[in-house]
Amino acid sequence: MKIVASVSTMQRRATQWRRSGVRIGFVPTMGYLHAGHMSLVQEARERVGKSGRVVVSIYVNPTQFGPNEDLSRYPRDLKRDLQLCRAAGVDAVFTPDDAQMYPTGKNSTAASAFSTYVVEGCLSQSMEGVTRPTHFRGVTTVVAKLFNLVLPDVAVFGAKDWQQAAIIRRMVADLNFPVQIVVAPTVRETDGLALSSRNKYLTPEQRTQATILHRTLQQARQSVKTQPVPATRLKKSLAKFIATAPLGRLDYLEFFDSDTLQPARQVQRGTHLALAVYFGKTRLIDNARL
Amino acid sequence: MKIVASVSTMQRRATQWRRSGVRIGFVPTMGYLHAGHMSLVQEARERVGKSGRVVVSIYVNPTQFGPNEDLSRYPRDLKRDLQLCRAAGVDAVFTPDDAQMYPTGKNSTAASAFSTYVVEGCLSQSMEGVTRPTHFRGVTTVVAKLFNLVLPDVAVFGAKDWQQAAIIRRMVADLNFPVQIVVAPTVRETDGLALSSRNKYLTPEQRTQATILHRTLQQARQSVKTQPVPATRLKKSLAKFIATAPLGRLDYLEFFDSDTLQPARQVQRGTHLALAVYFGKTRLIDNARL
Repeated sequence: MKIVASVSTMQRRATQWRRSGVRIGFVPTMGYLHAGHMSLVQEARERVGKSGRVVVSIYVNPTQFGPNEDLSRYPRDLKRDLQLCRAAGVDAVFTPDDAQMYPTGKNSTAASAFSTYVVEGCLSQSMEGVTRPTHFRGVTTVVAKLFNLVLPDVAVFGAKDWQQAAIIRRMVADLNFPVQIVVAPTVRETDGLALSSRNKYLTPEQRTQATILHRTLQQARQSVKTQPVPATRLKKSLAKFIATAPLGRLDYLEFFDSDTLQPARQVQRGTHLALAVYFGKTRLIDNARL
Repeated sequence: MKIVASVSTMQRRATQWRRSGVRIGFVPTMGYLHAGHMSLVQEARERVGKSGRVVVSIYVNPTQFGPNEDLSRYPRDLKRDLQLCRAAGVDAVFTPDDAQMYPTGKNSTAASAFSTYVVEGCLSQSMEGVTRPTHFRGVTTVVAKLFNLVLPDVAVFGAKDWQQAAIIRRMVADLNFPVQIVVAPTVRETDGLALSSRNKYLTPEQRTQATILHRTLQQARQSVKTQPVPATRLKKSLAKFIATAPLGRLDYLEFFDSDTLQPARQVQRGTHLALAVYFGKTRLIDNARL
């Protein structure tokens, strides 16, 4: 397994692979890998086959964090990440640093510093985009950069970040990136909590109550099993349900179309539900098609 | 010579070329080709060699025109363009249409329509960006799309659009596009007027006076030949000089560093000068390193 820290080396290597007809599967991550990430790696391998190359990037991208978010304390454990990747048969781990990804310019004039962003202006405006107004601009920008550096045929994203996956798909379609986007199912703990590197922040009490997200999804599925329900009414009853986890504080809960993310007024089987709940400073998200 | 109208065909063909190790040279244009464009084609050929492929795109990109600009009346002559390309040994002309480049979505919900832009936020703020506030967003977006569709090793831009070339270079560096950017010298009429598809709009009187742009560059070069001159003073005297062409109306005239586009307070040999002058509704631009 190659560990590539240099942007230019990564691009050169990927170009060589492409030239020699090798298929490239890509899993972009912020590290602190868990079984959810590893399922994406497995998916990537299945897509490109034994003869292909699977690349995992590990980069905590500063531009997708807001000023009061957890950039500095975001959990990191590169050594363990590399062990997991090696064990999973990853071919290359790409670990660039900020100076390479966002150069500030030789002569530190504003004009020679990083100044180009990829901005999705529609799907990014709801849900995560409300609480985290510059988040998706950071995500689309870094993913565009990573696509140009890793040159993947296939890139795999997790369904837990459903809005992110929809925005990436939109970006790929709009800017014609020659990349197939695959969204792989959320991996959960046995009690239903979606795997996330941020689960590490939770106290034992918070961890116990954090199953409220998953249970809310189940509750909602149950509610619309036999007939449609108006979104406002269901939202109210689910908010009450979430209040049964007293350490949790609801950030948002939205019903929408799985593909277009257009809000749904009537909730029925097949409608998508996403929610975010704070436990202290920790913000957890989850979603499901009902 | 292949004429490719389909986005997916273009990308498939480019992918095949890349896979087989063929180098791709690219000249993006809005058509109505003139000797300036053809010099870019020649440059592209020299860069990729006989065994390479040269692709010219002809697409009048709506997103780089402002609401009161000349999108609908922009001159077009595809038949003549194709003849010129064939004669110049171009391998493929890419002629997409708006429906393919900016899809409005199957079910015409806002969420399924085009919504991703590439935005350069620094170099795009001066000169052309003042008069044409959404222009460069359109340029960077369409060039990013075209790069992903044509997959060039080298792309050639004209020095006449100096600010545009600087912004494209910035975008390529910031987003890590695996493309080498070449800027080829401005081609001029015998009386010094820079070739431009928009010269067609000029009346005979305007055409005669339009040499004022080139003469202003020469005048400026003369003024700083022996010693530096404060930018404000030189700007004033050049504005007076431009007034000797009574059909012209100065839009802007700026001194700056050739690479960073940072404004220059002192003008000397090597400082860059760019200007835009209206003749009626027609806006001409030119620039030179003094």
